[in-house]
Amino acid sequence: MWRRCLPPLRLAPRFRGGFRNVRGVSGAERCGVVLDIDGVVRRGGEPIQGAKEALWHLEKASVPYIFMTNGGGVTEAKKAQELSELLEVELDESRVILSHTPFRLQAERLRSRRVVLVGGCETEEVARSYGFDVGGRAITSSQIVLGSPDIYPWPVQHGELPPVDVHAAGPPIEAVLIFYEPENWGMELQVLSDVLAGGLPLGSGASQAAELWVSNPDFLWQAGYPVPRFGMGAFVESLQALWRRRTGGELRVEECGKPFRVQFEAARELLSQVSGDTLDRIYMIGDNPAADIRGANQAGDPWRSILVCTGVYQGGAASNDQEDPAWRVEPDLLSAVRRLL
Amino acid sequence: MWRRCLPPLRLAPRFRGGFRNVRGVSGAERCGVVLDIDGVVRRGGEPIQGAKEALWHLEKASVPYIFMTNGGGVTEAKKAQELSELLEVELDESRVILSHTPFRLQAERLRSRRVVLVGGCETEEVARSYGFDVGGRAITSSQIVLGSPDIYPWPVQHGELPPVDVHAAGPPIEAVLIFYEPENWGMELQVLSDVLAGGLPLGSGASQAAELWVSNPDFLWQAGYPVPRFGMGAFVESLQALWRRRTGGELRVEECGKPFRVQFEAARELLSQVSGDTLDRIYMIGDNPAADIRGANQAGDPWRSILVCTGVYQGGAASNDQEDPAWRVEPDLLSAVRRLL
Repeated sequence: MWRRCLPPLRLAPRFRGGFRNVRGVSGAERCGVVLDIDGVVRRGGEPIQGAKEALWHLEKASVPYIFMTNGGGVTEAKKAQELSELLEVELDESRVILSHTPFRLQAERLRSRRVVLVGGCETEEVARSYGFDVGGRAITSSQIVLGSPDIYPWPVQHGELPPVDVHAAGPPIEAVLIFYEPENWGMELQVLSDVLAGGLPLGSGASQAAELWVSNPDFLWQAGYPVPRFGMGAFVESLQALWRRRTGGELRVEECGKPFRVQFEAARELLSQVSGDTLDRIYMIGDNPAADIRGANQAGDPWRSILVCTGVYQGGAASNDQEDPAWRVEPDLLSAVRRLL
Repeated sequence: MWRRCLPPLRLAPRFRGGFRNVRGVSGAERCGVVLDIDGVVRRGGEPIQGAKEALWHLEKASVPYIFMTNGGGVTEAKKAQELSELLEVELDESRVILSHTPFRLQAERLRSRRVVLVGGCETEEVARSYGFDVGGRAITSSQIVLGSPDIYPWPVQHGELPPVDVHAAGPPIEAVLIFYEPENWGMELQVLSDVLAGGLPLGSGASQAAELWVSNPDFLWQAGYPVPRFGMGAFVESLQALWRRRTGGELRVEECGKPFRVQFEAARELLSQVSGDTLDRIYMIGDNPAADIRGANQAGDPWRSILVCTGVYQGGAASNDQEDPAWRVEPDLLSAVRRLL
């Protein structure tokens, strides 16, 4: 049902640099480290014990490291600044891969075409930073409703972007990119269903007329509430269910985020760029077996997966996840880094 | 997947009266008429040609008639007043069955228990008119979020009802009643999923812990936009899809609205009450084969289905619907009434 057919990620030129040209821990092997964020370096807004020290050891040993999270909704620069302040290290946007970072490549391909962007209030800023023509060729569902109010006959709070009449002469909509969970599910489910069906009037088409890109497949996520909350995957699940009932067919979805290969290829490419060389070994250190560990295991060489016990995984360092066993299990990040160096 | 296990509807005492005690058109056969609204007596806010004259004929012949629609969201009294003004006849609430009218019976059963009410801004007024203890035992998802903000960690516009802490000592939630499409799908899908799962904290249960009542099964409806829009059935489809993915099981749903038997039993009961006698024949006059005609056909005696060509059905009076063929097809309401009298 879910397709995973993203092309290998080639990072945009602006991604290069931002990390000094380093060598691995030994002359024989160049290694790098990819760190998940929540449950590895922080929990509930606070640094996890030993995380700052672990980063200090990596810096001292000149081991390149970057962060990779299934979170998003802000620019990489903002996330890097947030982490810099929390962890007291110097980081810039070239050190962070968010769930929607691969969309930067889509901007290169889709810049001159009409696309619909979906997400919360900061999505426009993120999309602009990737090079999307926001307010021009890249539009929102809210702009479509403003241009054709009958398409969603319920009250809607609109942003500041102007109406777009998708029924007037103009290019067809070629793709929908879900950067983040939208604020108004009812409106987005209706308008995106119409956009994906295409036709004139919009929605009158019978088969999928636009690509659908989703930046994070997580159905549930762990927030402050003790029971996990619905994530972006739940929104997409609803969209798929409505599409199935409406058309009798299956929606084609292009997915990013961990554990998908595209995300691990992006991380590998980024680490190679910042280290100035191909790496012989990349350690993925994460707390989530189904995302971090599965993704690294599936990516194969040069990846090695290291599971820490400070987040989602509760099995303890003497055990391992049964479904997605890690290459190593360590109590926490500091312990993992000490073993590596 | 959808269960249809409503008990036979017994109308509340306040439903009685409001129609003079009449006899049918002939001494031998007592008949009554049930009219759909949209596509039968009005279209786009205007009376359909001949509709007023048709009602005048029914009045003159002392044939009892009532209106039955899958619409809702307002009280029966308000809908009756709206129709009175449009059609220039005297109608009161006893002459209208809305999609959620059968919920009046649920109020009798559930008045002393904790339930969640779902719908647009007028739902509270409708529920109060049915006898629900709104703001007391009958609460909204918004009240639950106010009482436990972490349960839905996104910005929410709340109504005026006070917070309810469903984790404090108090009765469990026994039923969810969807009166009308909710305004905030994202919030309702999350909170209702938790309510239906039950447990402490809410949502931690593994199987369906509360009844789910839906007043209108329509997946699509015809609004001003040329392509049909998602209706209440689409919201329930999403809820079911999320439930399936979250629990692996199927949600049990109790449905009202046409074509379900409960709605036709309510109409028959109401007509009998207002005519003061059992009716030998009831004519359902509607424009929607899948709702009006199928429902009357399935209800069997004393029902007869009459399809008019002024709404959804486009086949013409010389033809018939293939899937749900009507007992008779007539060009419009006036023609249908003339044939009956």
